[in-house]
Amino acid sequence: MYYIGLVHYPVLNKHGEIVTTSVTNFDLHDLARTSKTYGISGCYIITPNQAQQNMSLYIQNYWQEGKGAAFNPDRKDAFDTLFISPSIEETCLTIQKRHDTKLPPLKVATSARRLSKTISFKDLKQRLPERPTLFLFGTGWGLAPQVIEGVDHVLEPINGPTEYNHLPVRSAVAIILDRLFGL
Amino acid sequence: MYYIGLVHYPVLNKHGEIVTTSVTNFDLHDLARTSKTYGISGCYIITPNQAQQNMSLYIQNYWQEGKGAAFNPDRKDAFDTLFISPSIEETCLTIQKRHDTKLPPLKVATSARRLSKTISFKDLKQRLPERPTLFLFGTGWGLAPQVIEGVDHVLEPINGPTEYNHLPVRSAVAIILDRLFGL
Repeated sequence: MYYIGLVHYPVLNKHGEIVTTSVTNFDLHDLARTSKTYGISGCYIITPNQAQQNMSLYIQNYWQEGKGAAFNPDRKDAFDTLFISPSIEETCLTIQKRHDTKLPPLKVATSARRLSKTISFKDLKQRLPERPTLFLFGTGWGLAPQVIEGVDHVLEPINGPTEYNHLPVRSAVAIILDRLFGL
Repeated sequence: MYYIGLVHYPVLNKHGEIVTTSVTNFDLHDLARTSKTYGISGCYIITPNQAQQNMSLYIQNYWQEGKGAAFNPDRKDAFDTLFISPSIEETCLTIQKRHDTKLPPLKVATSARRLSKTISFKDLKQRLPERPTLFLFGTGWGLAPQVIEGVDHVLEPINGPTEYNHLPVRSAVAIILDRLFGL
């Protein structure tokens, strides 16, 4: 019912330009394990780059079928939640198909900055049971403006007790899932 | 006032044997950034292995003084919270010295399993202002029994809505700091 999309395009680089970032091995492991812990139905690694898609599939296969599966069966379970997708649009269509519905999933962007369309954790939690929901996380310097434009909500930034707001995406995913689905 | 120790010895491997694990580059980045976000006074990378200590210092220096500092000043700020330490005992002494006290810091172990001495997040939050506190996180398959024996409390495991309890240490640190210090 709840999905994560880790977006490698379109995202910003440090100069505010739109780029495609590289897939990071640790993101696959950490997001798969965290998704599995919090009952996420699918964690989509989104990149249009075919070489990067192939590399991601190779890593996933190592832990699902290769030597990794025998070495660490828990990791195999985690990687079962992982899927590779070429775009946000394709991810939405796949989720619609899974739920046999014409209604697209609710799209919730995450951001380190407070933007218009910002929804609080509390309000989002109340709305969640309504329909399948896709949480979008940006790599690099964050989701491109055209992604933000196309979503239903932007989740409020994670605030710690300091002004520093440069959490790794792996930590942001963990904190957001815990705030929404933790017991 | 609050400190993190990422323990590479003594920890367990998958066979329950006591080993020294390798330092992971991503742990340094992610723990430094998460620590900085949540106002942690020091994040100690604990390993008795000198080659691993040197490698950790090399990585830290790259982001503090080398090309990384110019490329990404936010990362430099985060790495300022990072320290390398040979043991849990040395880490405690360093923290005592920082606070000019003979009282050792309160030691709180974290674990994916419920053990004796377990304290809830709620109870720990109330006790926290009492004295400097060192949170110990195990790498590999978790902290060795002798570490657990020597701590004041073991923090209750992080529960998601599933039975899967194999969070990456990077995610566990993020979730625990958010539960204790998040706004």
